[in-house]
Amino acid sequence: MVDAHNRKKTPIRVGFGKIVREKRLALGLSQEKLAEKANLHTNYVGSVERGERNIAIENIYALAIALECSPKDLLSDVKH
Amino acid sequence: MVDAHNRKKTPIRVGFGKIVREKRLALGLSQEKLAEKANLHTNYVGSVERGERNIAIENIYALAIALECSPKDLLSDVKH
Repeated sequence: MVDAHNRKKTPIRVGFGKIVREKRLALGLSQEKLAEKANLHTNYVGSVERGERNIAIENIYALAIALECSPKDLLSDVKH
Repeated sequence: MVDAHNRKKTPIRVGFGKIVREKRLALGLSQEKLAEKANLHTNYVGSVERGERNIAIENIYALAIALECSPKDLLSDVKH
């Protein structure tokens, strides 16, 4: 299991952060506005977008609601 | 933000756990076998299935790979 508190970038985290950033910009939202909509800290949203966070499912759903999309849309596929 | 370590059941956690359990049973895997494939603890997989865990994205992907599906398939939609 991965320590939820470390800030190590991994492909999964970076991929998630890129999608969040794209969707935020498509809605014309600042990081501050997105954080406010999702009831998260601005610094936390910034670190998620940089791919530093092993974000948990409750916050994935909070971001999806704030980004007006399905949580599925925030995850990329994996190759098996 | 939600404490990653508490075991409180929430609709998001319970929904995720039900999907994991369905997919595990469809593959004919025990919790032990799934845990082994995903490199997670058996007790952890059990608590995820019971909806007690605010599971983080790295472990969502680990379970998806072990369950031979997309991580998207493990999340349910939300109503806006």
